[in-house]
Amino acid sequence: MKKQLLLVSSSRCKNGGYFEHCSNAIKEFFGPMTGNDKVAFVPYALKDHDGYTSVVSKAFLDMGYKIESVHTHKSPKDFIVDPSVKAIFVGGGNTFRLLNELHKKGILETIRAKIQNDGIKYMGSSSGSNIACPTIMTTNDMPIVMPPNFNALGFVDFQINPHFIPGSLMPGHMGETRETRIKEYHEENNTPVIGLTEANWITVNGDKTILHGERDSFIFEKGKEVRMWRPETELVL
Amino acid sequence: MKKQLLLVSSSRCKNGGYFEHCSNAIKEFFGPMTGNDKVAFVPYALKDHDGYTSVVSKAFLDMGYKIESVHTHKSPKDFIVDPSVKAIFVGGGNTFRLLNELHKKGILETIRAKIQNDGIKYMGSSSGSNIACPTIMTTNDMPIVMPPNFNALGFVDFQINPHFIPGSLMPGHMGETRETRIKEYHEENNTPVIGLTEANWITVNGDKTILHGERDSFIFEKGKEVRMWRPETELVL
Repeated sequence: MKKQLLLVSSSRCKNGGYFEHCSNAIKEFFGPMTGNDKVAFVPYALKDHDGYTSVVSKAFLDMGYKIESVHTHKSPKDFIVDPSVKAIFVGGGNTFRLLNELHKKGILETIRAKIQNDGIKYMGSSSGSNIACPTIMTTNDMPIVMPPNFNALGFVDFQINPHFIPGSLMPGHMGETRETRIKEYHEENNTPVIGLTEANWITVNGDKTILHGERDSFIFEKGKEVRMWRPETELVL
Repeated sequence: MKKQLLLVSSSRCKNGGYFEHCSNAIKEFFGPMTGNDKVAFVPYALKDHDGYTSVVSKAFLDMGYKIESVHTHKSPKDFIVDPSVKAIFVGGGNTFRLLNELHKKGILETIRAKIQNDGIKYMGSSSGSNIACPTIMTTNDMPIVMPPNFNALGFVDFQINPHFIPGSLMPGHMGETRETRIKEYHEENNTPVIGLTEANWITVNGDKTILHGERDSFIFEKGKEVRMWRPETELVL
């Protein structure tokens, strides 16, 4: 089946509302949904599943979509494979916790199969975009829990570093920059990394991978100079 | 044996030279060394062991100490237990890589035993301070490799978050603040966390744990208000 992905860097941009900066892109991506059609929401990156679901439900209702969180179902697995589920949205938070919970609930494979075999749409934001990659190794998050391994859904053949910002975050701060962190990743691994700025999102439609949004993002490949990725252009690796 | 630790947040502060901001503290901590006495250096947090050792050797020679890196020895384990080794210094870099290499080289236990049983001195900087804690779960680093587990040396009963900076790093950036990350850590774990600013370092002398340096650091305890930790005062948890 043709892969259809929407991978957002950040649910908020420049202090704007929840998905305000990319609500048109979300509507275009999901298209019209009718009747009992719904988006299955995965809230596990945050601790407060009910609170998270309520924020997300409101934002999606405003865009015309019904959200139902997997955590409200006795069997998240059965819910995800229900024919009324037309898309899956995995929200941001802590990537280690998210991956660990997907393992604990036994739905990592269920989500992978549903996207890859049934061709339903996948949207991720921040951590949810991280876990669409081969591994979670380019997350910015703290390792607050230990998942069984770092392998993720692998829908794309590149890594995403969400909330990307070039250079030092604060004048005189000596912590590693994102570029240094990604360079360290490439000392140990070979997969290209997209430094996805908060103003950007990626759509994948079959074999077409396109950047969208107000700014440029950055393409890091092992042993090569970093390149800009311009909005409305296709990713070439 | 009495524990003697020096845990530095950052090898550089405000663009200063390597350990410039705390060189007096290092000299006071190690005291005089004579003859064949040396500090065993653990360079595994960075990829370039030779380059790293050369930078560190120079800085330590300027302070009057001979450094010898464990990576130059066929058996790092035998070297660490050599009686001429009066202290161990674990340098900063990527904490996941550091912990993984300590496992691969089989010296995590060797270092632990040498510090805990023989009472030699331990100095860590950044990642090297992280791994003196019970786990590496409060590192800022990218998970570029997967260690067998997140357990570390456990010389202290608190976690350190090095290079700590309060608040948002850049106006309008929506990535999680350090406070949010530490709050997420406490949603899953109970150990107190020290947000150690780059101007600070911690000395542990038996059961006395004291903060030093130009600024305040921060004490995060699960379910409690964050507290300031003033320099030259003892840690009370």
